[in-house]
Parts: sequence; structure tokens; C-alpha cells
Amino acid sequence: MTKKGILFIISGPSGVGKGTIKDAVLAKITDIKLSISATTRSPRNGETSGKDYFFVNKDVFQQLINNDELLEWANVYDNMYGTPRQFVEENLTRGQDVMLEIDIQGALQIKSKKPDGVFIFISPPSIEELSSRLATRATDTPESIKLRLAACKWEMEQVKRYDYVVLNHELQTAVDKVCAIITAERCKVKNFNLERDMIDSSFNSGFNGSSK
Amino acid sequence: MTKKGILFIISGPSGVGKGTIKDAVLAKITDIKLSISATTRSPRNGETSGKDYFFVNKDVFQQLINNDELLEWANVYDNMYGTPRQFVEENLTRGQDVMLEIDIQGALQIKSKKPDGVFIFISPPSIEELSSRLATRATDTPESIKLRLAACKWEMEQVKRYDYVVLNHELQTAVDKVCAIITAERCKVKNFNLERDMIDSSFNSGFNGSSK
Repeated sequence: MTKKGILFIISGPSGVGKGTIKDAVLAKITDIKLSISATTRSPRNGETSGKDYFFVNKDVFQQLINNDELLEWANVYDNMYGTPRQFVEENLTRGQDVMLEIDIQGALQIKSKKPDGVFIFISPPSIEELSSRLATRATDTPESIKLRLAACKWEMEQVKRYDYVVLNHELQTAVDKVCAIITAERCKVKNFNLERDMIDSSFNSGFNGSSK
Repeated sequence: MTKKGILFIISGPSGVGKGTIKDAVLAKITDIKLSISATTRSPRNGETSGKDYFFVNKDVFQQLINNDELLEWANVYDNMYGTPRQFVEENLTRGQDVMLEIDIQGALQIKSKKPDGVFIFISPPSIEELSSRLATRATDTPESIKLRLAACKWEMEQVKRYDYVVLNHELQTAVDKVCAIITAERCKVKNFNLERDMIDSSFNSGFNGSSK
């Protein structure tokens, strides 16, 4: 019997550094599969469908929504983005852990469909810190920074719906904490994978038996 | 408002190496207080009351039991051992994390009184491994080894009552996993300690506020 994989959701306010943390975590823990999003936007230079994104047209995307085949979706600047349920479910069923990096709105959508996921909130150490990070990102205009800081208050209040909170004050510390969370979740009795984790099976009864 | 500390219980079958793991973990994570047991046995060379044990006579020990001042207790070779509740509670109330290293019977007693504790089961990688470990400990007779292996089957079945299981196949790996569990538990939203963990308090409302 193969135990199901664990779904890890790395989430947090815009500009908090969750993408950088996700990359560093996956470089350290290599046996986690990153979820691939579907999008209606055009591929950029060097992007491959099925690797960076699943590139689909608007009709196909609408079909995915209609058939409840997305764990979450959003419209960003007239492009649609979503998380295909099938990719995630197939990997989890095979015992493969999966990671998703997503904004807070998306994480809350996923939580309603996958409440067993492990929800990790990446938090800025302070409002000032987040503000200066957004200001130094070339992609953001002053107006969008303002809007994002307003959204941030609501977003921070959602931390209660998560399982874990990790402050991104110092990148390496934050990465180590997320790695620790993954290691710990894999040690949970309910997630313990006999076939993967045990040296021999002489104690199987202790994990799978019907004794009280 | 100071959040309460976390109670970590390191437990497992006799001879599994939980004492060695506990020492190595406390050497790495120095801000956890080790619980001190009360005992009726005489101090050995160099042992100090209040540091190694609380040394008490049988009348005092019986009084502790009668007043429900022990989280668990046991009679081992005619000496009484127990975990004073007051020491643990006082530290937790101050926000101080506490660690207890204890056998499985003791851990289950503690679970009935402190269900919020974090229960970590240290597992031998196999029966053969445990058997050879017990055989090389000078303190155990062949009969006691036999008894312990018989008890081990029952003990392994108790793993389901724990939160985490860590295989002690390779000491350093096991130590790293227990440290990861401690780090992860401290990142849990319910254990998050604003005063200890946040750089500033601008986001307090997200953690302590009454918003839905």
C-alpha cells in the first residue's frame, strides 16, 4: 500500500519573496514535484508547455473551469492562470509530494478543495520591509505598490487559515524553516510511508494493524 | 501576551537510543528546557538534586502522587520515578519550551494529561537492530533483553498515538529530523509567538485580531 503524497502550498503577500524561497527549497529537497499552472498567456522566450506552464487557449481554459478541473484560477491582467487538478492528484496518488507556489487568494481556493494540504504562509518581517521590496522591483508602478500594500492588510489577516507561518527576514533562515516543515510533515505518523521510510517491515503491524 | 511554550516528548522502546538523540538535540537547540524527574533512588556520584533529579523520599513521592502533582510515574526496580507537573507547567506558562525523554508507558500517561504535547516516537529500524543494541549494553541481562523484546511488540503498536515517528537508523539523520520537528512546531500558526518571533508588531491584528 502506497501512502498518498503530501501537498505543500507556499503562499504569501505579493513581493514577500515566496518564489525565491520555493526555488531554494526545491534545490535542497529534490524529490518534490512542482505543480505546473495552466495559462492563456503566450509563451515567453524559451518557455515550454508542460514544463513552465500548460499553455492553452481561452476556450480550453473555460472548459477546465466548467469541468471543475482547476484547484484554483484567477484572471491577471486579462490572462487566465489556474492549477490543473489532474496533475496534482495523479502525483499525490503515486505517493509523490507536490509543491505549489501561489498568492493568498489562490491558496484559500485550494484550501477549500484540498483541506489536507500543508499551507505555509511566508510573511514579511514588517510593512516597511514589504514596501521597500515592492518599490525596488522594476515591474511594479507606484500605483500598483499602493494597491498591493492595501491588499496586504487583508492578506496578513488570512494567516490564521494556514498551518505554518515563516518570516522572510533572512532568506537562508526562511528556506531552512520551510525545509524543516517539509521534513517534519514527512515524519508525521499519518504521513509515514512504510515502503519508503522503513528499513524492513517487521513493525508493519504497529502502523497498519487494527490493534487499538 | 506571551504564548505558552511547547512540550516535546521524546519517547520510544528501551535501547532505541532516545537518550543519545535527546542530548544531541539539546546541544543544537539550546533554548529548550529539559524536564527534571523526581526519584526515590539515592543520588549517584556527582548527581545534584534539582539538576539531575529531584531526590525525594518515599513519603514525599507518595504525597506527589496523591496530590496529582506528577504527570506520570513508575516503579522501576523498587525505585519510584516521576515527572513533576509544576516544573513543566511553570516553564510552559512562561513561554518556555520543555522537553521530556521517557519510555512509552510514561508517554501515554503524559498524553492523557497533556494532549497538546508534541509526541515523537523514536523507532528502531528493525527488530534485529534493537536486539543487537540491547545485547551490547552491559546493563542488560539475557532475560531482561528477552522481556524487553516481548514488550517491544506492544510498544511499537503504540506509535499510532504519537504525532511523529523518527527512525533511528543513522544517529545524525534522526537528530536532524527531531530538530526539524521542533523548528516546524515553532512555525505553526497556533504556536507562533509574536513577541518572540516577529520583527515588529505592525501585523499583530492578523494573529490576535478578531477578524473572521
